[in-house]
Amino acid sequence: MGRQYTIYNTLTRRKENFETIHPGMVGIYVCGPTVYGEPHLGHARPAVTYDVLVRLMKYLGYKVRYVRNITDVGHLEHDADEGADKIAQKAKLESLEPMEVVQTYTIAYHDAMRRLNTLAPNIEPRASGHIIEQIEVIKKILQAGYAYESNGSVYFDVQAYNRDHKYGLLSGRNIDDMLETTRALDGTQDKRSPFDFALWKKASPEHIMRWPSPWSDGFPGWHLECSAMSEKYLGETFDIHGGGMDLQFPHHECELAQNVASRGCQGVKYWMHNNLITINGKKMGKSLGNFITLNELFSGSHALLEQAYTPMTIRFFILQAHYRSTIDFSNDALKAAEKGLKRIMQAAKDIKGLTYKGDSENEELKQLMESVMEALCDDMNTPIALAHMFDAVRIVNTAKEGKSTLSLKDKEILDEMFGRIVPEVMGLEDESASSSDQNLVGGLVEMVLEVRKEAKAKKDWATSDLIRDRLKEIGVNIKDTKDGTEWSL
Amino acid sequence: MGRQYTIYNTLTRRKENFETIHPGMVGIYVCGPTVYGEPHLGHARPAVTYDVLVRLMKYLGYKVRYVRNITDVGHLEHDADEGADKIAQKAKLESLEPMEVVQTYTIAYHDAMRRLNTLAPNIEPRASGHIIEQIEVIKKILQAGYAYESNGSVYFDVQAYNRDHKYGLLSGRNIDDMLETTRALDGTQDKRSPFDFALWKKASPEHIMRWPSPWSDGFPGWHLECSAMSEKYLGETFDIHGGGMDLQFPHHECELAQNVASRGCQGVKYWMHNNLITINGKKMGKSLGNFITLNELFSGSHALLEQAYTPMTIRFFILQAHYRSTIDFSNDALKAAEKGLKRIMQAAKDIKGLTYKGDSENEELKQLMESVMEALCDDMNTPIALAHMFDAVRIVNTAKEGKSTLSLKDKEILDEMFGRIVPEVMGLEDESASSSDQNLVGGLVEMVLEVRKEAKAKKDWATSDLIRDRLKEIGVNIKDTKDGTEWSL
Repeated sequence: MGRQYTIYNTLTRRKENFETIHPGMVGIYVCGPTVYGEPHLGHARPAVTYDVLVRLMKYLGYKVRYVRNITDVGHLEHDADEGADKIAQKAKLESLEPMEVVQTYTIAYHDAMRRLNTLAPNIEPRASGHIIEQIEVIKKILQAGYAYESNGSVYFDVQAYNRDHKYGLLSGRNIDDMLETTRALDGTQDKRSPFDFALWKKASPEHIMRWPSPWSDGFPGWHLECSAMSEKYLGETFDIHGGGMDLQFPHHECELAQNVASRGCQGVKYWMHNNLITINGKKMGKSLGNFITLNELFSGSHALLEQAYTPMTIRFFILQAHYRSTIDFSNDALKAAEKGLKRIMQAAKDIKGLTYKGDSENEELKQLMESVMEALCDDMNTPIALAHMFDAVRIVNTAKEGKSTLSLKDKEILDEMFGRIVPEVMGLEDESASSSDQNLVGGLVEMVLEVRKEAKAKKDWATSDLIRDRLKEIGVNIKDTKDGTEWSL
Repeated sequence: MGRQYTIYNTLTRRKENFETIHPGMVGIYVCGPTVYGEPHLGHARPAVTYDVLVRLMKYLGYKVRYVRNITDVGHLEHDADEGADKIAQKAKLESLEPMEVVQTYTIAYHDAMRRLNTLAPNIEPRASGHIIEQIEVIKKILQAGYAYESNGSVYFDVQAYNRDHKYGLLSGRNIDDMLETTRALDGTQDKRSPFDFALWKKASPEHIMRWPSPWSDGFPGWHLECSAMSEKYLGETFDIHGGGMDLQFPHHECELAQNVASRGCQGVKYWMHNNLITINGKKMGKSLGNFITLNELFSGSHALLEQAYTPMTIRFFILQAHYRSTIDFSNDALKAAEKGLKRIMQAAKDIKGLTYKGDSENEELKQLMESVMEALCDDMNTPIALAHMFDAVRIVNTAKEGKSTLSLKDKEILDEMFGRIVPEVMGLEDESASSSDQNLVGGLVEMVLEVRKEAKAKKDWATSDLIRDRLKEIGVNIKDTKDGTEWSL
């Protein structure tokens, strides 16, 4: 809280000074995954974006409650031609159980998020676990007169709502314009208007997930869960609601309308939307064959991938673009990110080995640290922050080469930048082998090189060559320089 | 299914031939953790026990649906002297949110279970996610006349139930005997009889977790969730219900009564109960100071622990006792388990390096494999199975020492025993460093020893001693033998 954070609010379409509703505390709700498939690139961007937001808020001194839901009320259906009777006869163990699917992909999602080093949310509510809460919201909306029942289903009455409250605030859509461009319903539907959306759907015989309700055995409409769960865990009005830009309309627009209709307030102070990911310029889609799962990225097992990319490379790549900009995945871009990440992580190691003298201050470094914080607090501008860090890396490297010296005051800044901002805020961790193994290997190689040095001193070329060749076989390359022998794996 | 499995059924108090309700499929429900505290030793035993059961069933060819619940409807209460009004005024973000606690300990539990190499259940339903289902069960029990409402709470009427169905089948308790030894209620309670248990509790103002119901804003009784969730995911009657012996009464007894009262059948074919863990002969308890969390075991950070014990050591230790026997944790016992595990895992590596000739059969080995399967299928007698495996280890070691030779047919048996039973059924995995690092370290040490050998050959004692000393510094101990030099980390 020491520094003013500015946040772009989708609702007002401008950057605003971030002021929390309750001093020192931030409530954040983010739309999480629908767990009916493998976690893919599309999941990585919002997860990393809001993870850095949460980490930054904590770094700035806020107490954060981060809620991210799991959409597990899916639309799995029994094989239609089985018919309701056949299904009823089937043993539970024989028939498809949606919660088995949910469990499989929830675990896959959590594993991928762990590898991306995203912090688990403080609360991870499931739609299926909050049916009662959703039914209560529907009752309130019906009571307020902004919904109607139709054949066991309940729909939100957009036009009735629009008469009292403007519908379309978030997406900037005007319902009257929409009316003109939308053709009327053919009358076969339960809805009165094409804009109306389901709050409760009566389940067809084939529909597996169903719960009793005052209107029918059915299931809640998709938009409803976020209204119900965000209020339950963050209160009637909370600070930040995040999600992908693709959710802005209709999902978040409907959520906002549900909030007003059920509790008389919009519920959200700042709406945040991350932009989407394209692959080689194209939208990602199963049909386009450019649908890449996170495990495929981590293992490189996809036709479009020239190599495997580590979770931290993916994370770094996402942070190299501002969250409101589009981002295009390509092998070249990912390889560049891989290099950039290496430079940052190397610097983070190097600063531990440097010798710091005196208490003069490197003014440029001081300014860079200031600029990094400015960028982060300017609507979370991670690419600018990283650019300043690369300048700091240059300063570290100059000192490493002995072309300049750094003071203990400079060390404090470097420790803050590479020892706290990089791991704590950016969430970038060292992916190299566990340090204990590293030390063992390092120690062994160093001693081998020492033996080789002695051998050379004794003109024992046989031994020194043997060592060089055998090291090469094992995968250790050595280079003789005037200052000694360098080695790398 | 190739082999007949026999299972001890707590309900009948005898071993029975295991016959599944639906051919080839097994439905298993196990009582999972209450996620309001760190996972401890008490969690490890049932988790490992039923994990091996699930693994064994799969090995035997069954299709398994393994359901393990999470009890997250806790009894957290607001600070009593805050009073309902103060609580209502509090901001959501300020007040204690049970689901935050649930999230913290659910993640801790999953992490510990992953380290113990237990398979995730196919479905992991939460009590809080099945309030509607529990309310529906209560309605049925009320309708059947085995429950009554009292001041907004609903209680199971044990004596009414006992008149039509015997109460106490599972625990072997007789309600009439119990009546004599139990003093009557003092009349201040809503319950009619001391045996009656809550199906629904009206929430006090301080009680945080609450849902609307036909009777009051409240929460379900603890016993109810397992009746509701096991039926939802496994059907009216399923094969195996497992849990700790401490749950037999009242939890499982009440669950059985709820099943009969709500759906007219007991619901469970085989009841399985694992025995408990004592520590140095004493019951584990926070008050006794012998309460050890799994992380404390893994890190050795507890006054009672002389060292850290790896997850596989804990797992092996649990498998060395039959699940129906008590098991006493002590440092000596754990160290013995550590040794035993090492022998098994070493043999699993050694069989890869042995040379197999001819097609004669080692009759003893063949018999041991048969005995291992017999033991496993005899109510999952893992200690006996392990004893036979140790005899097989002896055979492997004799061959390794060159004192006997094994055939390709013997290899098939060894591969089955150490390559499948050990990892797939026992769930024991190699905990040594990742093989790639191992190879690198191994390669480096080997080459250093080669250099040292040459140095010695050249009577270059300086170099050979330098190498020995430096290796020692790094943590590599070497021993010169007549066949060469052995080394160990």
